[in-house]
Amino acid sequence: MSKITTLLSHLQAADLDMAVFSDPVSINYLTGFYSDPHERQLFLFISPESEPLLFVPALDSERAIKKVDFPVVGYVDSENPWKKISATLSAKNYKHIGLEFDHLILTKYQGLKTVFEHATFDNLTPIINRMRLIKSADEIQKMRIAGNWADKAVQIGFEAISGDKTETDIIAEIEFAMKREGLEMSFETMVLTGHNAANPHGIPGPHRVENNALLLFDLGVMANGYASDMTRTVAVGQPDQFQKDIYALTLEAQQAALAKIKPGVTAQEVDRAARQVIEKAGYGEYFNHRLGHGIGMDVHEFPSIMEGNDLVLEEGMCFSVEPGIYIPEKVGVRIEDCGYVTQNGFEVFTDTSKELLYFEP
Amino acid sequence: MSKITTLLSHLQAADLDMAVFSDPVSINYLTGFYSDPHERQLFLFISPESEPLLFVPALDSERAIKKVDFPVVGYVDSENPWKKISATLSAKNYKHIGLEFDHLILTKYQGLKTVFEHATFDNLTPIINRMRLIKSADEIQKMRIAGNWADKAVQIGFEAISGDKTETDIIAEIEFAMKREGLEMSFETMVLTGHNAANPHGIPGPHRVENNALLLFDLGVMANGYASDMTRTVAVGQPDQFQKDIYALTLEAQQAALAKIKPGVTAQEVDRAARQVIEKAGYGEYFNHRLGHGIGMDVHEFPSIMEGNDLVLEEGMCFSVEPGIYIPEKVGVRIEDCGYVTQNGFEVFTDTSKELLYFEP
Repeated sequence: MSKITTLLSHLQAADLDMAVFSDPVSINYLTGFYSDPHERQLFLFISPESEPLLFVPALDSERAIKKVDFPVVGYVDSENPWKKISATLSAKNYKHIGLEFDHLILTKYQGLKTVFEHATFDNLTPIINRMRLIKSADEIQKMRIAGNWADKAVQIGFEAISGDKTETDIIAEIEFAMKREGLEMSFETMVLTGHNAANPHGIPGPHRVENNALLLFDLGVMANGYASDMTRTVAVGQPDQFQKDIYALTLEAQQAALAKIKPGVTAQEVDRAARQVIEKAGYGEYFNHRLGHGIGMDVHEFPSIMEGNDLVLEEGMCFSVEPGIYIPEKVGVRIEDCGYVTQNGFEVFTDTSKELLYFEP
Repeated sequence: MSKITTLLSHLQAADLDMAVFSDPVSINYLTGFYSDPHERQLFLFISPESEPLLFVPALDSERAIKKVDFPVVGYVDSENPWKKISATLSAKNYKHIGLEFDHLILTKYQGLKTVFEHATFDNLTPIINRMRLIKSADEIQKMRIAGNWADKAVQIGFEAISGDKTETDIIAEIEFAMKREGLEMSFETMVLTGHNAANPHGIPGPHRVENNALLLFDLGVMANGYASDMTRTVAVGQPDQFQKDIYALTLEAQQAALAKIKPGVTAQEVDRAARQVIEKAGYGEYFNHRLGHGIGMDVHEFPSIMEGNDLVLEEGMCFSVEPGIYIPEKVGVRIEDCGYVTQNGFEVFTDTSKELLYFEP
């Protein structure tokens, strides 16, 4: 069943006679066409009562027509897009309309209100988020490919380790390699050396790689519209026993969480599984963020793996498992893999070893 | 006068007793503090009746406190941000509130409506855009620095030219060099070889640099929160006479526009100055976009330099001047500089030569 067919059944259940998508990622998810319209207008109109319609800036028309098998209407900057939408859609006929409240800015909302002047509006975000929450086999395959790229990217980072280089130098080498493959990172790459990784708010900069310390890599790659995200912390030279103990504890926490995941368990139970390990060892206050976040076409989406979220996990949900311990001035460790809930467990998208790896400075 | 003081006078003129900023770039513009809160809440509250307040995710509190000299309130994920804002602000007292309609998403708007339950709302976007439209001497200095980085970046691109390389290879080299300096690009770098530059919708990919053809570079660098943006088209080998003629025509159009700019002239008159040169030569249909866009902390902001915009230019406005001619299957040229309106003309931020430069394949 196509995603639009699935969506239509949700619209009918919610008694909506029109859905208007404005988030470029939602539109990509539903149609395979991606464009960021910036200040221009890009909407996907889907109604149980008529064909879908993709409304795009004229610059994008040609590319959109190649991607979708339903009508595309383009507008040029000198046209009033709201009038053009009204004229194209017989907009007066629609009474109950879904909009993406989590993405639609007020100015565009006001424009749509002039188009659908007799309608009431409801929030589409829960419907599309719910659809995106459960990944199809095809999506999971794409997530796995994105994860493989993250494995390659972190490997390039490992090979670049040298006491002569700064965090920024290593980031540049990783991103260069991905760029040459025509790939974008899914967020700003983080490489943090010892003291900076220990700062819970550390940001990469011109800090040379420290010897006898840990080095943290947090990165992800976009591939086919899907994001990866992974963190590895490695040893440069010979970190002291305390650093190694904190590493081992973080890994134990991650493994406890990974082992906990299966359909029927709640998100907060997974967070607790990791947090209890760290709290029991007396470092709870240094694990100051949620255990994980959903991931898919966006690097942060649902479900949030945190205390307070009693969402029951289902097969096909994708998220990160990333406990971290940050003790200022002493040590910072995070270990992260993303994966998906299987019939009876969790399978990760990244294969890079989690034994503490040692590198020469 | 500080930017917040200027803003307060605008609020009083508009009879607003509170302004709520939600766009991270606006908040950076007004306070020097930048953070992208993603799905969390970040607001700057400014009222003539009390001190400003910066409301941030707890993760950002420490960094925000260092940046601003007024109160910062952080909230953790387990708190209800709307209740915390209400409690902090005595929100009931405010009756007429400005919001950034061009940036505020509906979900956050609904949250703010619960905070300011007895208020009416007006659009702040015109006020902040008007402030950002006229750059201060300090901002122009930052734009010039960003422009210098763009000159360096395009130079690295020129040095990378080789028939063995693809567009993507050259982009990777440019971005690597900037990344090592700790700098981000202000948008996705474009390097387009002959046939691809001739496509008005060309996107960079694994196309090797063509010989006896033109090669187009469009790039920008962020520095100190300000963006640059420039385009140069150069020759690889010996392009034919037609390609050289189109290059000369594009340059003539750009020079006509640059010469036209001074305070008192309208935006559309500047567009026309360039467009007339191209139309007169019979290629008007191949110059299918506006002449330019404003630039500052965002790479696209006001003013738009296009037909239909009768905005009168004033000293301190910054924008791009970028005529282009794209004849499918034949040739594509664009030449772009950004600059600012001076007392009696226009000064550009980028110095790279605009004589047609020749490179060996």
